[in-house]
Amino acid sequence: MAAPSTLALGCDLGGTNVRVAALDASGHVHQVSRRKLVDRAPEAVADQLAEAAGEVLQRIGATVDQVAAVGVGVAGQCFGSTGMVLVGPNLGWRNVPFGSLVEERLRRPVRIVNDLSAAAWGEAQVGGARGARDVILVFVGSGVGAGLILDGRLYEGAGGIAGEFGHIKVVPAGRKCGCGELGCLEAYTGGHNIARRLRELEAGGRARAILRAAGGDPTRISGAALEMAAEEGDTEALALRSEIAQMLGVQIGNLVTLLNPARLILGGGVLSGMPGLKAETIDWIRRSAGRAHIDQVTILDAALGDDAGVIGAGLLALHAAGA
Amino acid sequence: MAAPSTLALGCDLGGTNVRVAALDASGHVHQVSRRKLVDRAPEAVADQLAEAAGEVLQRIGATVDQVAAVGVGVAGQCFGSTGMVLVGPNLGWRNVPFGSLVEERLRRPVRIVNDLSAAAWGEAQVGGARGARDVILVFVGSGVGAGLILDGRLYEGAGGIAGEFGHIKVVPAGRKCGCGELGCLEAYTGGHNIARRLRELEAGGRARAILRAAGGDPTRISGAALEMAAEEGDTEALALRSEIAQMLGVQIGNLVTLLNPARLILGGGVLSGMPGLKAETIDWIRRSAGRAHIDQVTILDAALGDDAGVIGAGLLALHAAGA
Repeated sequence: MAAPSTLALGCDLGGTNVRVAALDASGHVHQVSRRKLVDRAPEAVADQLAEAAGEVLQRIGATVDQVAAVGVGVAGQCFGSTGMVLVGPNLGWRNVPFGSLVEERLRRPVRIVNDLSAAAWGEAQVGGARGARDVILVFVGSGVGAGLILDGRLYEGAGGIAGEFGHIKVVPAGRKCGCGELGCLEAYTGGHNIARRLRELEAGGRARAILRAAGGDPTRISGAALEMAAEEGDTEALALRSEIAQMLGVQIGNLVTLLNPARLILGGGVLSGMPGLKAETIDWIRRSAGRAHIDQVTILDAALGDDAGVIGAGLLALHAAGA
Repeated sequence: MAAPSTLALGCDLGGTNVRVAALDASGHVHQVSRRKLVDRAPEAVADQLAEAAGEVLQRIGATVDQVAAVGVGVAGQCFGSTGMVLVGPNLGWRNVPFGSLVEERLRRPVRIVNDLSAAAWGEAQVGGARGARDVILVFVGSGVGAGLILDGRLYEGAGGIAGEFGHIKVVPAGRKCGCGELGCLEAYTGGHNIARRLRELEAGGRARAILRAAGGDPTRISGAALEMAAEEGDTEALALRSEIAQMLGVQIGNLVTLLNPARLILGGGVLSGMPGLKAETIDWIRRSAGRAHIDQVTILDAALGDDAGVIGAGLLALHAAGA
């Protein structure tokens, strides 16, 4: 297979895997390689990333010199202009100069970026939001977050930590969030927290239908069981699902009122795995956002799926390198 | 007085007055002229603005040919790229091509902009936020709104209506707002609505200290009376002021978490007239925003005062005209 004339590497660094894709300037992915992280020390992760990169390049018959730029999406707070990973909760990292570590190994320009920012960039460049200059991606999976493309540019904030949508406060002094603060949106609507809330309900004997939907096994209770019980008409499940949908929908609607995007992209495992929740959430978005704002926005599903991160990171790196 | 070498006109169009300032590229205001609007029909308002412009130019011995650009800040929803005022509530306007009307009269490039966007631009260029690329201005006066400078550029959204901070929803199906929707932040914390809420309390006999602070005259009840009663330790007044501060502070804190600005500028008559409310609001901002986000932001008072709008509109017009 021939290497494309403009070649980028797009990487997605999660807590358990690193994925590296070779892609061209149109966002077409030519090859992907994945490594399970055997060691989470920054130097070791950079080595594993470089190995995966070597493998994809070999498969397309290219050398690293042909790579115009390398983008790395990281689940965490990143500062693109210095290549620092400020906080990488799944990796247990704080202030890791990961950009430099990758650059030392590959000797190509490296762009570090938050994973949802990368996904938003990918969707805005070659996904469902192509051609729009103002795009918000909201992701509700085990965590909750957003990526912001404003006026045609990735918006990362003064210190690289904009878009922390999951950590806006919805209940003053409310539920404790994984981030250590109280009352965050994610503490009520993220996948891990939905499951935890359901298990709390079940422990109080107030989630019989949900427990049944989980095959009677409390450890298997999750959003899927909630969705199933709600679809069967269980009052408790319907009420809880509506509460989650309202919290998400009002806050996403507020984002729309505040930022007046042309496209709103919804993604993540919780929304894709719970179609009833998603429909109710969209209802609340429509009811909550300003009239003029909702008329101007198109709500879309994420189109690039699992590849959004690697595609976005690779294209952003090309963009940053002026390639 | 000699005309500056680069000359702009900055205008501020309110519901009752139009102000026109002649300023230079450093934001220094050389002359100001004001007209009370005798007729709010768009053509008539454009005539009055042009008259005021003629007057300031005459005073500095300049002709309109020396004007590089004209900026007009309007309290309402504007679309800068077409010069349309989409909604101007105080003027009773809808879809008025005001940019064209002014351009026909002055024959110079005209930039129409929301008044708080103009103020944010002014503060970011020559006010307290000078030098910062990510600046949020929050204004709590009779209305509530925001202006957003993101990545060094004025952010107006896909259709020009970003920054509608006063109309994010804080109480689903809550108090009716002046905009016609329910539960907006402005319906609880804007100056008009604070006064209305106080009069409701008073009518129910639950605001004795507040009524006393208003000299016993229910029609004089306002935020100032609330502040006075709270400072005297009245329980009812303290509770209501805290509730308003919490609503404002949590939502402003969420803005900081979401947009990671380097500067947050607070302005408007409610905050400047109620120092106790402002202090409590800032407390809530600090408690609500993400830790890293609050560490990265400096909270400032608006520095340009009443001139922020004309200065910002004039400088933005110069910027847009490339002058």
